Amino acid sequence: MRHHHQYLMIPGPTPVPQTVALAGAAPMINHRGPEFGELLKEATRGLQEILKTRNTVLTFPAAGTGAMEAAAVNLTTPGERVLVGVAGEFGARFAEILRVGGADVAIVKSEPGYPVSPEAIRDALRKDRSITTVVITHNETSTGVTMDLAGIRAVIDREDVLLVVDAVSSAGAIDIETDGWGIDVLVTASQKALMCPPGLAFVTVSPKAWDRVEKTRARSVYFSFANARKFLEKPTPQTPYTPAVSLLFSLREAVRQILAEGLDAVFARHALLARATRAGMRALGLELLAADEWASNTVTAVKLPAGVDGHKLLEMLRDRYGVILAGGMGELAGKIFRIGHVGAVNWSDIVVTLSALQMALAGLGVKAAHGAAVAAAERVFSEQGWPL
Amino acid sequence: MRHHHQYLMIPGPTPVPQTVALAGAAPMINHRGPEFGELLKEATRGLQEILKTRNTVLTFPAAGTGAMEAAAVNLTTPGERVLVGVAGEFGARFAEILRVGGADVAIVKSEPGYPVSPEAIRDALRKDRSITTVVITHNETSTGVTMDLAGIRAVIDREDVLLVVDAVSSAGAIDIETDGWGIDVLVTASQKALMCPPGLAFVTVSPKAWDRVEKTRARSVYFSFANARKFLEKPTPQTPYTPAVSLLFSLREAVRQILAEGLDAVFARHALLARATRAGMRALGLELLAADEWASNTVTAVKLPAGVDGHKLLEMLRDRYGVILAGGMGELAGKIFRIGHVGAVNWSDIVVTLSALQMALAGLGVKAAHGAAVAAAERVFSEQGWPL
Repeated sequence: MRHHHQYLMIPGPTPVPQTVALAGAAPMINHRGPEFGELLKEATRGLQEILKTRNTVLTFPAAGTGAMEAAAVNLTTPGERVLVGVAGEFGARFAEILRVGGADVAIVKSEPGYPVSPEAIRDALRKDRSITTVVITHNETSTGVTMDLAGIRAVIDREDVLLVVDAVSSAGAIDIETDGWGIDVLVTASQKALMCPPGLAFVTVSPKAWDRVEKTRARSVYFSFANARKFLEKPTPQTPYTPAVSLLFSLREAVRQILAEGLDAVFARHALLARATRAGMRALGLELLAADEWASNTVTAVKLPAGVDGHKLLEMLRDRYGVILAGGMGELAGKIFRIGHVGAVNWSDIVVTLSALQMALAGLGVKAAHGAAVAAAERVFSEQGWPL
Repeated sequence: MRHHHQYLMIPGPTPVPQTVALAGAAPMINHRGPEFGELLKEATRGLQEILKTRNTVLTFPAAGTGAMEAAAVNLTTPGERVLVGVAGEFGARFAEILRVGGADVAIVKSEPGYPVSPEAIRDALRKDRSITTVVITHNETSTGVTMDLAGIRAVIDREDVLLVVDAVSSAGAIDIETDGWGIDVLVTASQKALMCPPGLAFVTVSPKAWDRVEKTRARSVYFSFANARKFLEKPTPQTPYTPAVSLLFSLREAVRQILAEGLDAVFARHALLARATRAGMRALGLELLAADEWASNTVTAVKLPAGVDGHKLLEMLRDRYGVILAGGMGELAGKIFRIGHVGAVNWSDIVVTLSALQMALAGLGVKAAHGAAVAAAERVFSEQGWPL
C-alpha cells in the first residue's frame, strides 16, 4: 500500500488538516462582497491574536519570499543602510532581496548551527550609526536555529531604527510578542505553523513602520502596503488585487483551530515535539547541528552519519516508509538532513519518523538498536505528558 | 493539539482515505441514468475481482448485519435446518437472525479464541442429514480468529448443502477464493477492508444459491435477491430501491485503489500488520487470545493484564494519544481489548498504536520498557521488508 498517509516532515509546506483543506473547497464568493469582508476580517483578527499584535496585518497572495520583498520595497529607499543578521540560507535570501532593491546592506553572519547573537547586532549598530533598519530571521530553517528576538530588540537603542523579522517558519509555533518586543514589521506565510496550503503571505506593520512607509517612495504596485491598508480599512474589508479566496477559507478554519487549541498549548506542543525529535536522534547516535540552547522548535537539523549518502537516506525514507524529510541547503547540502515538526504535527508523527529513520539507517548499515529512537521519544512524551 | 490524525484502530469502521472520502463528495446523479449504470457496473466488477468470483454481486444500502439478514430470508424457509458455526459474537448474531427468520438452527460452538474446525462441521453434518445450509463466520471479529474456509468446504460432502459465509471483517484483506472454494453466498460490507464509510452491504450469489432462492418464498421486499438481480441485469444497471449513490462513488475509488495495489500485496500487507502487532503485544508482556495458527490478519484480541481496567486503558489511549481501540464483546467484555488493522492501515499506524500502548500501560502501572513494542514491530517490518 503506497502511503495512505504520507508523513510530510519537512519544514514546510506542512501537513494540511483535512478540515482545513475541505474549508478551502467552499463555493467561490465575490471578493468585493460582504461575505469576503467578514472572511478577511476574521482571518486578520485571528492572525493578530496569534502574532500578539494590534498592528495592521496585510495579506498578499504570495510566497513568504514575496512578503520579504514587500517589506524591502516598502521600507527601504535605494541607498538605505540596512543591517541583516544572516544565520543561514534564509537570512542570506533576505539580504539579497534588499540588495536587489537598492539597499546598502551590512551583514552580520553566524557559523552554521549558531544564531546571530544580540551582541553581534549591538556591535554592528555601534560601529555604524547610519543603519536605519535591522532585519533578522527569527527561525533559520536551513540550520534549525532560533534567534533571540527579545534580546536583539533590547540592543537596538536608537528610536528611529526599525526591526524587521522574517518569522515564516516560526510564527504560530514559537511564541513571538510582536508588540511586546517592538517588532515593527513581521513577515510570515500560510504553509508552516498556520497549517494551510502555500499561497498567502502576511506582513504586520507598526505605526513606526507606517511612518517609514509614508516616507518611502513605493517601488511596487502589487506589494504596496499603503494600498493594501486602504482596502483593508474599507467598511467592507477588501484587498487591492484579487485575493486567494479559497486559501483564506482555509486560513480562517486553521486560525480557529489554533485559537481553540490555545496559543500556549500550541507553543508547548512544538517544544515537546522538538525535544522528542532531538532525544530520538541522539538515541540513534546521530549528531545535531544546533545546540539545545538555540535549537529550533520547528525544525531539527541532523548531521549525516559518516558514510551515509543523504540522497539515499531520504529516498529510502520516502519510498519505503512514506516519511518525507528535507536535505541540507547551500553549503550544508550533503552534510545534514532536516526534520520539520511544525504545524499540524502530532506526537505520533515523531514516533513514526523516528521508527522509519531507525529502519532506514539500519538498512544503510548504520548500527542502531531497534526501538531505541522511539524509546527516547516515549520517555520525553511520558515524562512531560503529551499536552492535550 | 487534539488529534489532527486520529488513529481509528478498531475492527471497523476503518479509516477512510481522504481520496475515497472526497470521491463520495462528487455531485449527486440520477440513480436511473447511464452514469449510475456505469458506476454500479464498475463497482460490481471490482468486487467480483476482489472476491474472486464470477457470481452475481448484489449491493444493498445496509449494514453488514442487513446482508446477513438478506441471506437468511432469501435462502431459508421456516423450519429449514441450518448449521451455524459460532466462534464468537458474530457467529451468534447470524444464528439469531436465522432463528428469528424461522430456521431450525443447529450450532457448533468453539471456545473463545478458537476457531470452529472443519472436523466439528463434518461431525455435525454426519449426525444430522437434514441440514441444508452451513453458515460460517470467516473471520470472527470478537475474538480475532479466522476460520479455515477451504477446509470447511472440503467436509461438506453433500451436493445440495449451501455454504454461506460472513466475510464482513475479512473480504478484501484476507484471501477468499469465493469460486475456488465453492462459497455459495458470501456477505460483506463497505466499512472494513474496502476502506469506505459504512452503509453498503454486498452479497455474492452462486448458481446453486440462485436455485435455492427460486425455491424459497421471498420474505423481504427490500432484501429480495431476485428483485436486485433483475435490476442489476438491466441494460443500464440499477437497484430496485434508491441506492446510496455517494457511498458507491467512494466504493468505486476504493476498489480502484485496492486493485492498483494488487490483491496479493493487500493480503501480504494485512498479514504483516498482524505479525507486527502480535510481536509488539508479546514484547509488552501481553497475552494474545488466539494462537498464531488461526489468529486473524485483520483484528488482534489481547488479554488485559491483571489489574488493568480495560475502560481506563481505552480512555487513556483515546484521550491522550488519539488511538482508538476496541474492548471485548459479550463474555469477553472487560477481559480483552482488540486492535483492528484492516483496510487503509499502514506500517506506521501499528508503530503509533504500539507506542501509545506502551505509554498508556506504563501510565497505568504496567511494567514495559520504553520502545520495546516498537522495537519488535521494527524487527518484523525490517526482516520481512515492508511491502511497497
